[in-house]
Amino acid sequence: MPRSTRPPSSKPGPVTLAMVARRAGVSPQTVSNALNAPGLLKPETLERVRSTVDAMGYRPHRAAQTLRTRSSKLIGYGIRPTAPGSTAPVMDRFLHALSGAADEAGYRILLFASPPGAPGLEGHEELLDLHSVDGFVLSGTDRDDPRQAWLARRGVPFVGFGRMWSGRQIGDWADVDGASGTDAAVEHLVAQGHRKIAFLGWPRGSGVGDDRAEGWRRAMRRHRLPVRGRRAQSVDDLAAAHTAVQPLLDLGATAVVAASDVLALGCYRALRERGAEPGRDVAVIGFDDSPAAALLSPGLSTVAQPLEAVGRECVRLILARMAEPGAEPERVLLEPSLVLRGSTPAPGG
Amino acid sequence: MPRSTRPPSSKPGPVTLAMVARRAGVSPQTVSNALNAPGLLKPETLERVRSTVDAMGYRPHRAAQTLRTRSSKLIGYGIRPTAPGSTAPVMDRFLHALSGAADEAGYRILLFASPPGAPGLEGHEELLDLHSVDGFVLSGTDRDDPRQAWLARRGVPFVGFGRMWSGRQIGDWADVDGASGTDAAVEHLVAQGHRKIAFLGWPRGSGVGDDRAEGWRRAMRRHRLPVRGRRAQSVDDLAAAHTAVQPLLDLGATAVVAASDVLALGCYRALRERGAEPGRDVAVIGFDDSPAAALLSPGLSTVAQPLEAVGRECVRLILARMAEPGAEPERVLLEPSLVLRGSTPAPGG
Repeated sequence: MPRSTRPPSSKPGPVTLAMVARRAGVSPQTVSNALNAPGLLKPETLERVRSTVDAMGYRPHRAAQTLRTRSSKLIGYGIRPTAPGSTAPVMDRFLHALSGAADEAGYRILLFASPPGAPGLEGHEELLDLHSVDGFVLSGTDRDDPRQAWLARRGVPFVGFGRMWSGRQIGDWADVDGASGTDAAVEHLVAQGHRKIAFLGWPRGSGVGDDRAEGWRRAMRRHRLPVRGRRAQSVDDLAAAHTAVQPLLDLGATAVVAASDVLALGCYRALRERGAEPGRDVAVIGFDDSPAAALLSPGLSTVAQPLEAVGRECVRLILARMAEPGAEPERVLLEPSLVLRGSTPAPGG
Repeated sequence: MPRSTRPPSSKPGPVTLAMVARRAGVSPQTVSNALNAPGLLKPETLERVRSTVDAMGYRPHRAAQTLRTRSSKLIGYGIRPTAPGSTAPVMDRFLHALSGAADEAGYRILLFASPPGAPGLEGHEELLDLHSVDGFVLSGTDRDDPRQAWLARRGVPFVGFGRMWSGRQIGDWADVDGASGTDAAVEHLVAQGHRKIAFLGWPRGSGVGDDRAEGWRRAMRRHRLPVRGRRAQSVDDLAAAHTAVQPLLDLGATAVVAASDVLALGCYRALRERGAEPGRDVAVIGFDDSPAAALLSPGLSTVAQPLEAVGRECVRLILARMAEPGAEPERVLLEPSLVLRGSTPAPGG
């Protein structure tokens, strides 16, 4: 039984194989042979069919070709809700990059709405059953993510935007080296003369948050500087950030590296309540280059993720996996970049 | 060359029509007839097949049903790039809402990357040719948008998130009543005692921007207040907003209604350069409830679009159009809501 959902076109207007056959006075099978097995036809029949194909502008329906090759040319992606008030900085840009890279490879991204806080395995199953997707791109991967094992068990190609953060690594992924980003942030601040560089992080246990903390920590140790960080009580919560940063400021931090732009904003607020000015009195670096970062006064220096490159890599990896299901897993870690704005002014600037 | 990497056998468990046929000792065609044309079968054969179907828990494959009914259950959507530095407030939330509403109706959203500044007709054509989408949702509709006429000519169902802003209205759309939003903003400011309420708008010629200007204008006229507005030289450009708002502040505006949150932010900057504080000295209301609005100090009052409702309406309208291609067009205008924050403090507050 064919698994493809591809119907013959119901669009008005397109020239069909049957129309070509009628015009050329041959059977549809003969037209099909002319296109796919021309050696079976007598030369004059082949010539007649070909000239009719040209005259009518008939293009063999690529959907039908897809049916034959059992590939839907669809890649599934579970879109997650954006919390109101979140800076939601990256996922829409990633999705556009992903869609563009897929388009170029002849694939399309098929969305399903992934419920918040759930892995959405049902959504994956439906896309397989109803739309025969060729594979999945996963985002928001985290510890104990069940999706990779679920897909691997079924032999379904997938690629993660994001690592497996615990347990056995399963499958291919592309990710951004968050630790490298916060490390670079510390390097920049050290070069500017800072020594008391604090870290304002997410609650322990998130793979992404712990990774960003680790980059700051290793850079501080490399420079033999005191390692003083605090974790906000919740991810991307302005009030929690505001509370968590207070003891760091009490200890005289001259710079704060934050695990997100929202946390950096909580730091802006805490500074201003103390009569201090971000940038002038205490340097602040966020993470994500969210749309808000460029709009703040002073503009927020931040670590930007190379989302276009992540989108391209995800498509490259899943195509390679489809082509060679048994190949060794490939994992790609991409470098983020430091975007400098007014919150980290040059010395004397 | 088989392109699929997921052999049918890798799916756990599903009972196929062929398996039912073998068990019942009939041909697959007979099983198909039992399900779709039972009158063709002898009663005892029908009974045998039906009891086998029940015993094995066979569910006619919905993909195959889709094939028969000539519906792909796919709705195409051209995702547009987010400019860096834009507040990009609405489209990712809309896309999640749209995807969720489509899921509930048994449809999926198929993405293609729409190039910036182009209607992307090629993308639409490819989705029709290669994936036989049942219709399209259009966003970012603007004056002289060629997409609606292009789709209508081909008899392809579509719905716009956004009106046709010029010429003949074509097809169904759902939109947010921007004029109603800025009207409500003025009403709120008037109730708080403001009389010199300026408007900071987009360059003339954008349907969305002109609509937002019109709501402010009609509310000001209703209250017999002086109609003084300025247009920034470019859409959502902080520096252009900063320049454009100066003469309004020179004229002593006590409140500014801006056509976007980014323009409102330009107003924040201009005020602070003059030693004035947004909210305390001059009230500011933006538009879009972008993620940045809640993060600012003071928080930015703004007009929020009901994106969940827009997503639901788009799905409802396109399903109705698919069901009844000849029906009268339906157009739905949804009310935005005012989100009040510190930039419009209560009097004496």
